[in-house]
Amino acid sequence: MAQVTLGNSEFDRDTAVVRRAPGRYDAQLSAGWTIIRAVNGGYLLALMGRALGDALPHPDPFSVTAHYLTASVPGPATLRTEVVRTGRTMSTGTATLVQTAPDGTEVERMRVLASYGDLAALRDDVRTSAKPPELPPYEHCLGTDTAPDGGSAIPGSTAIADRLDIRLDPATSGWAIGAPSGKGEMRGWFGLADGRDPDPLSLLLTVDAMPPTAFDLGLSGWVPTVELTCHIRCRPAPGPLRVAVTTRNLAGGFLEEDAEVWDSADRLVAQSRQLARAPLGG
Amino acid sequence: MAQVTLGNSEFDRDTAVVRRAPGRYDAQLSAGWTIIRAVNGGYLLALMGRALGDALPHPDPFSVTAHYLTASVPGPATLRTEVVRTGRTMSTGTATLVQTAPDGTEVERMRVLASYGDLAALRDDVRTSAKPPELPPYEHCLGTDTAPDGGSAIPGSTAIADRLDIRLDPATSGWAIGAPSGKGEMRGWFGLADGRDPDPLSLLLTVDAMPPTAFDLGLSGWVPTVELTCHIRCRPAPGPLRVAVTTRNLAGGFLEEDAEVWDSADRLVAQSRQLARAPLGG
Repeated sequence: MAQVTLGNSEFDRDTAVVRRAPGRYDAQLSAGWTIIRAVNGGYLLALMGRALGDALPHPDPFSVTAHYLTASVPGPATLRTEVVRTGRTMSTGTATLVQTAPDGTEVERMRVLASYGDLAALRDDVRTSAKPPELPPYEHCLGTDTAPDGGSAIPGSTAIADRLDIRLDPATSGWAIGAPSGKGEMRGWFGLADGRDPDPLSLLLTVDAMPPTAFDLGLSGWVPTVELTCHIRCRPAPGPLRVAVTTRNLAGGFLEEDAEVWDSADRLVAQSRQLARAPLGG
Repeated sequence: MAQVTLGNSEFDRDTAVVRRAPGRYDAQLSAGWTIIRAVNGGYLLALMGRALGDALPHPDPFSVTAHYLTASVPGPATLRTEVVRTGRTMSTGTATLVQTAPDGTEVERMRVLASYGDLAALRDDVRTSAKPPELPPYEHCLGTDTAPDGGSAIPGSTAIADRLDIRLDPATSGWAIGAPSGKGEMRGWFGLADGRDPDPLSLLLTVDAMPPTAFDLGLSGWVPTVELTCHIRCRPAPGPLRVAVTTRNLAGGFLEEDAEVWDSADRLVAQSRQLARAPLGG
């Protein structure tokens, strides 16, 4: 039995996993990262990512895919990992998260397939045509404790909101006062509320922590993730992150959300895409 | 033992899998879908997708992720599938593809995690802001049997080229005559050479069948896929497909390739992203 993480932030404490045996970990899903009653998918992804980082010989998530099977609830959970392949520069593994239902049966919550490597070992070439999102300064953006145009604060504030420091671009927060842009975009500043700096694990949270782009399309309600894949491309520099999430294709009752995360050094540090069920509300 | 597919096209014959037992399939990786010596990753994905479509209760791939572990070679292969969860509208499974090395050991080639559903059962709402790529007419685009500006045909023609009918937008084929655009884009018309119409399985091939965007960035050489995720969003209408592939972030020795596939009815039928190792050549 070994405590895998020694970080002292809320994020590190709440994503801690305890190795009980090779490939088997215990965790406590914290009620502090819930939206209404559901545990946030990005928080769960970071927790799974931490277990895989312990199980695999390489430290950093390069590409992580999660399929969300059933809704996780706060409380105890068991993680099982399997090493698929160990290579020189990368290794691949799977992970599953299960919880025990009230009737004593084991229910799988999510399944993960991931390849890990060492971000510090990568070549330092950067040839990117992507540009960081143009955001107003942090203090001109809107958080859950500020009020756009004198109206109410960003709605949907639940436990997770206390742990995140998200400031939305006013151009993508009109939905909060009944005036969505209709473009399907969500942009803003992102940080952890207790000031913990970003790292590859916390980026797995960041890519699934913004309000749903569906809100900016004028839809309301639940947007459950079916599948999310995240590429971590660079170890983030300390300081605030900028996140831009875009939906291009709302069709057939599903939508994709593409997220890009930029660090304070203007590096594109994470790219993710998720497939989610579109809310029925209009 | 049951032949899972009865299609009579090259694609259907070459992606056929034979069920030997529940969750176990035999396949022959065809030399007809190779690039130089390597079996194309999209062809392999379609083959895995066919086995999962047999193993799972739902017919169509909604989200499929593959991690490519070692290079597959033409010849016999074994696929094993596992049903992770069966839901009412979707089901989730994993698949692995193994081959026997000359020394008799079993080598895993790729691991897949996927969720399946029924595309025919989806709501018919379409609210997409994405636009099909603007392509010159098919006859003004360049194939492996045509020659840009009187020069040689598109290079890299190998076995797979005989089975595909790809016509590249001249704007993204300058690399073939030593004048890459530098933008990291690849656009063109896509079909199967024998005229077989597209379906969800063949879309899994389509998203990984264009020349690498790295060529348009002025790089040459091998671009091995680490991971590829494909969302099938709609059953494609008969007729030619339009494919647009874009790279925004070439950094640290890796790049992403985002592919969008549009059908003849102007529907966005597939979205994919892959993480690949960037070629070292300049």
